[in-house]
Amino acid sequence: MSRWEPNTRERLERAALELFAERGYDDTAVAEIAERAGLTKRTFFRHFTDKREVLFSGQDILSRLFADSIAGAPESATPLQAITAALEASGVAFPPERFELARQRRDVVAANASLRERELFKRAALTEVMAQALRARGVPDPSASVAAELGALAFGMSYLRWADSSGDEKFADIARETLEELRAAAAALK
Amino acid sequence: MSRWEPNTRERLERAALELFAERGYDDTAVAEIAERAGLTKRTFFRHFTDKREVLFSGQDILSRLFADSIAGAPESATPLQAITAALEASGVAFPPERFELARQRRDVVAANASLRERELFKRAALTEVMAQALRARGVPDPSASVAAELGALAFGMSYLRWADSSGDEKFADIARETLEELRAAAAALK
Repeated sequence: MSRWEPNTRERLERAALELFAERGYDDTAVAEIAERAGLTKRTFFRHFTDKREVLFSGQDILSRLFADSIAGAPESATPLQAITAALEASGVAFPPERFELARQRRDVVAANASLRERELFKRAALTEVMAQALRARGVPDPSASVAAELGALAFGMSYLRWADSSGDEKFADIARETLEELRAAAAALK
Repeated sequence: MSRWEPNTRERLERAALELFAERGYDDTAVAEIAERAGLTKRTFFRHFTDKREVLFSGQDILSRLFADSIAGAPESATPLQAITAALEASGVAFPPERFELARQRRDVVAANASLRERELFKRAALTEVMAQALRARGVPDPSASVAAELGALAFGMSYLRWADSSGDEKFADIARETLEELRAAAAALK
């Protein structure tokens, strides 16, 4: 196949997730992913540093998206309104055509301890990104930290809820509702 | 020195933290830690699986402590009262004589990206332990998750506050006050 074919990255991603699901993450080699995608190892390494990055590169994009959305929220926005804007913006990473990929990814991560560890770490990094962005808006601690924790928790729950859904509901809507649920739960906590 | 000398584990810990502080975590070998402690490598490996575990084995003890305290809190205790009990109980891991060790550990972890990653992961694991223990008490989600996030955040902040303090204040007191601050911040969040 031509190396100029579009969507090379997504083809590699689909091939990787198929293989991870079929034979397990640990037992899948980069060469096999490239072969399944009809591409070379060299092409794989132009897109990803290793097979783990196929599963986690999206979270770096999310980090930037979150930081930019919080920074760009109206000056009058409350901390949770800024986080709501960030969660809604992250919906671009979860379009309907990626629904099956998101489900596969969830199952692959859930089945592997070191991937679960990586997921928890990435979630924690995302929390810190949101907390920093809120502090930069003048939100004092501990409010910035608490709001960021709720935001990260809402994000994680929304991802699982979306993946568990029929796929008809928009990620942004699920995320907004989930954050509001968490806000109410936090306010009622004794 | 005799292999039966008491406090072998703590001697290894002190030697490791000294060396990590002096020459950096990555550039310290297990053999050097053992030598500094006047012990053998074999003795080291009877206490720790690797040098990283010197820094993180405490968090496994904390996990069990948190789980047991939350499970053992009076039936009438609210979620945050159960978490307060857990944080107070964790004070046994932070006695005055470990104050300097805790400060050294904080600095070593802060100076190394992979250790910071591990710390974030351990914190996330601790969150999950608390959430599970609350669910086992019948606390529904998302309250259990939100309370656990506040508990883990309070624990992390308390550790840093204690390490930053003069050392006169008890960890349990700092932790209780910190959790109450976070509760108030969460309740006021908009």
